[in-house]
Amino acid sequence: MHCLKLSLAVFLSIAAAISAIAQSVPKSLAEQLSYPPDSKLLIVHADDLGVTHSVNAASIKALESGAINSASIMVPCPWFPEIVDYAKSHPDIDFGLHLTLTSERIYIRWGPVASADKVRSLLDENGYFHHDWTPATKIDPQEVEIELRAQIDRAYAMGVRPTHLDSHQYRLDSTGKELFLVALRVAHHYKLPFFVTRDWFKDYPYLEKTLGRNDVVIDHTITIDPSIPPEKWADFYKNAIRAMQPGVTELVIHLAYDDSEMRAATRERDTWGAAWRQRDFDYFTSPAFRQLLLDQHITLVTWRQIANRTQHQ
Amino acid sequence: MHCLKLSLAVFLSIAAAISAIAQSVPKSLAEQLSYPPDSKLLIVHADDLGVTHSVNAASIKALESGAINSASIMVPCPWFPEIVDYAKSHPDIDFGLHLTLTSERIYIRWGPVASADKVRSLLDENGYFHHDWTPATKIDPQEVEIELRAQIDRAYAMGVRPTHLDSHQYRLDSTGKELFLVALRVAHHYKLPFFVTRDWFKDYPYLEKTLGRNDVVIDHTITIDPSIPPEKWADFYKNAIRAMQPGVTELVIHLAYDDSEMRAATRERDTWGAAWRQRDFDYFTSPAFRQLLLDQHITLVTWRQIANRTQHQ
Repeated sequence: MHCLKLSLAVFLSIAAAISAIAQSVPKSLAEQLSYPPDSKLLIVHADDLGVTHSVNAASIKALESGAINSASIMVPCPWFPEIVDYAKSHPDIDFGLHLTLTSERIYIRWGPVASADKVRSLLDENGYFHHDWTPATKIDPQEVEIELRAQIDRAYAMGVRPTHLDSHQYRLDSTGKELFLVALRVAHHYKLPFFVTRDWFKDYPYLEKTLGRNDVVIDHTITIDPSIPPEKWADFYKNAIRAMQPGVTELVIHLAYDDSEMRAATRERDTWGAAWRQRDFDYFTSPAFRQLLLDQHITLVTWRQIANRTQHQ
Repeated sequence: MHCLKLSLAVFLSIAAAISAIAQSVPKSLAEQLSYPPDSKLLIVHADDLGVTHSVNAASIKALESGAINSASIMVPCPWFPEIVDYAKSHPDIDFGLHLTLTSERIYIRWGPVASADKVRSLLDENGYFHHDWTPATKIDPQEVEIELRAQIDRAYAMGVRPTHLDSHQYRLDSTGKELFLVALRVAHHYKLPFFVTRDWFKDYPYLEKTLGRNDVVIDHTITIDPSIPPEKWADFYKNAIRAMQPGVTELVIHLAYDDSEMRAATRERDTWGAAWRQRDFDYFTSPAFRQLLLDQHITLVTWRQIANRTQHQ
């Protein structure tokens, strides 16, 4: 009996140790969302809402038809109030804020939400956000924080309840540790997840080093780029979705109609232009895309689910 | 001979006196433009360029077809860079600046060119220009001056060479003597004529009292208003043009296409909306309008001619 008692004690100790070890291995994001770890989970996410009416109208159409299930909004842009109005009357839709520090077009431009005098390093000589950042562009991280907070504050003040944050042109992820720290600090302050994927860790090692235990990391991301010719558009997406790995993937797309407004807004270059965005719209609203998700046993998830996930790891 | 000499001296004195009196009577604006005083001179002027691509595209089309001969641009608006690009490559076109202190739409909005902290009285709680001014809106004239100068400075910095200034929604003319003084001071500083017509003197007596001898006063203005039903549009313009008085008249019109961008930008009300602006576009680009000008012996003049007029009175 004594021996049995001892064995039971040993067994319980071992079991407790195993449990402790298991608890110290962080759950995958899929598990935190209560899915099996080998699930293929997908966010179909449209960027750039607010920039033109055409982007807003096409993105709303895609959200309402179920073609996409998440999107993010550019607060400094002229059509922000239109999408605010829509977001307020559709509070269940998964809208984030597409934090914006550049004004990359030529014929339509925008500037800061913060008072210009407080964010001078972000502005060109005419008072718009810089068209682009070069090594000569000295961006002040403190001014970035002022501007990000101003964008988020305006969104809340006007009635948006964002589910997440991400970064227009990935500037906050790809410019260096300092700006990434600002983005994380702001995200923590507003208790919002900030889009980072482990796909970027190799190119930007500071991301992994800077992230905390409770920060969200999306496993993979897919986005099309200018190397894909228009006639290969559907093939690119089909192949990428068929090749999806287990875990959470964010598919980043850019929707608009190829109409006169969008053609004018983007006429200086074809990349992310009107025809590009119409191709995205056509593909993602097609029955073929929906069938592909079914065939590949892919489950759609949202940033709202991620924000509300079980964080006990 | 002595008598004759005396008579000649008297005659010369009288002639000199008559000439002095004649010189003290200011020449009419028509005469300053070297037209007979009974000429019917017309500026066909489109407002609001820069606010949307639709407004820009329709206004450019009307300028190029000869349907209109002058226009003014809203510097704070998102599509200002598009019209700057056009103005720079078409330096002979008669572009003024449509000084803007309100953001009167709901789904597309804009804010100041000056640093927000310097013009707080002009801004609503979200940082846009006020949607409207009520008696409760306390507008600081010093802040108005800062913002007007910022708009004009941005226009020059980006390459526009304006021929004149006018005021979006006539706020600078109709809000009181203080703001009108600011507008005049700014106009004098930049040596640009500012649109005022004597048609407004009765309702706003401070205009006439404030204007100096060398300030331009347009004799009359014509603009359509919401009391005119759509089916009476052409009749209104026909009758107004047939009833034109001698002197310089500015016909203020609002052009755009009735397209998806413009419908979305103005969908909260029909006044100055997409269909309104398409009706203006259709009328002013019609052969009927051109024929009417011929039939009525009306001569088109521009703000550039006014800016360059003989100012010796």
